[in-house]
Amino acid sequence: MDVDAAVFDVFGTLTDWRSGVTDTLADIGGRAGLEADWPTIADAWRRRYRPVLARLLSGELPWRPLDDLHRLMLDEALAEHGLDDLGGAERDALVRAWHRLRPWPDAAPGLELLHTTRVVTATLSNGGVGLLARLTKQAGLRFDCILSAELATSYKPDCRVYRMAAELLEVEPRRLLMVACHPDDLEAAAAAGLRTAYIPRPLEWGPDSERVGPPAGVDLVADDVPALARALGASG
Amino acid sequence: MDVDAAVFDVFGTLTDWRSGVTDTLADIGGRAGLEADWPTIADAWRRRYRPVLARLLSGELPWRPLDDLHRLMLDEALAEHGLDDLGGAERDALVRAWHRLRPWPDAAPGLELLHTTRVVTATLSNGGVGLLARLTKQAGLRFDCILSAELATSYKPDCRVYRMAAELLEVEPRRLLMVACHPDDLEAAAAAGLRTAYIPRPLEWGPDSERVGPPAGVDLVADDVPALARALGASG
Repeated sequence: MDVDAAVFDVFGTLTDWRSGVTDTLADIGGRAGLEADWPTIADAWRRRYRPVLARLLSGELPWRPLDDLHRLMLDEALAEHGLDDLGGAERDALVRAWHRLRPWPDAAPGLELLHTTRVVTATLSNGGVGLLARLTKQAGLRFDCILSAELATSYKPDCRVYRMAAELLEVEPRRLLMVACHPDDLEAAAAAGLRTAYIPRPLEWGPDSERVGPPAGVDLVADDVPALARALGASG
Repeated sequence: MDVDAAVFDVFGTLTDWRSGVTDTLADIGGRAGLEADWPTIADAWRRRYRPVLARLLSGELPWRPLDDLHRLMLDEALAEHGLDDLGGAERDALVRAWHRLRPWPDAAPGLELLHTTRVVTATLSNGGVGLLARLTKQAGLRFDCILSAELATSYKPDCRVYRMAAELLEVEPRRLLMVACHPDDLEAAAAAGLRTAYIPRPLEWGPDSERVGPPAGVDLVADDVPALARALGASG
């Protein structure tokens, strides 16, 4: 596949948000004397994400940083599970769990391999610029550029986010590849004129994840990031 | 020095624009059958930069991308030196010389050393995001983030550019270090509340460069990027 740049989803596609968020919930919740099935709380938190984004993109909610959205969703998830006792400082610390997630094992070596090609790489995530810079540094995920929906004052899957990435990188949309494990992200990128690559992450929601497949019309399916890098011209 | 992030000027501080631009002028001008003292043309081109920025920041010129400013300045510099015969395609190719400059020899190893610390690193340049992503990739300059004055629809030394960097990185201005070889860049950063580090580049304008010193009140002077990295906590 011949493209000039590749942009990557981060939460789910490159990082295992579920184990990181579960660990932080168990740590902070446990120290606060709470007991819960923490993976279930992590899932309940994340499950509020798409509905909240939909409310925001419809104009029902004004734009706000992802940390604020995470706090809003966390408050709802805790209330739903009878965990109202957790204090504000603990909730803020939980929100920061999304700043330091572990990468999937193939992500860092795959990005290093991709770095050997002429393809320019960037994040394209709903996380903010600062969050992404710190997360990718700590996780050892090498990128040539950090792009965030924040720079369009919007969120994926708003088509303006994908177009902004093409404009800032100064590449034609059809020479820009969006890489994600989420079909809706790829469908929106394709609608904005980008090429698309799907990487399955069957453990995103834990061992009992529902099976997700690539969206219709996807340009490339790769087993993992090194396979994607090879499809984009890396040897190794 | 205790800071959370360091942002770097690129043209001059990390890259040797003069030799790269001179080589491209000699190549493209020579192939067009023109003769000139190419380093003098490179200097004439670059010397128009600060006056043009001043006109733009005063509101006399509307904001436009750096490539467009470079073209405007190039046209003037060529006319001034009787080189009007150069065609439009050649002029566009010359503008792209600024996309692929060579780094000073200490820049890449210094940034690798800085990468081993907890300090988040970013560009903060008047080059656009796409230009900076390609230039730093080709030059082997490792950054955690690419920031450009383009993201504030302005240019350094507008204080909004420095404040934008602190906001996007989510760090206090006093925890953010601006690194440059140009006193005016550092003075403007300091006025915006940032800390400042000066790295001398005595060959920026070639062997006959005028001597420049650090501005009054600079927080740190480092001989080169590895020395800066060590001052920020790197061992090596």
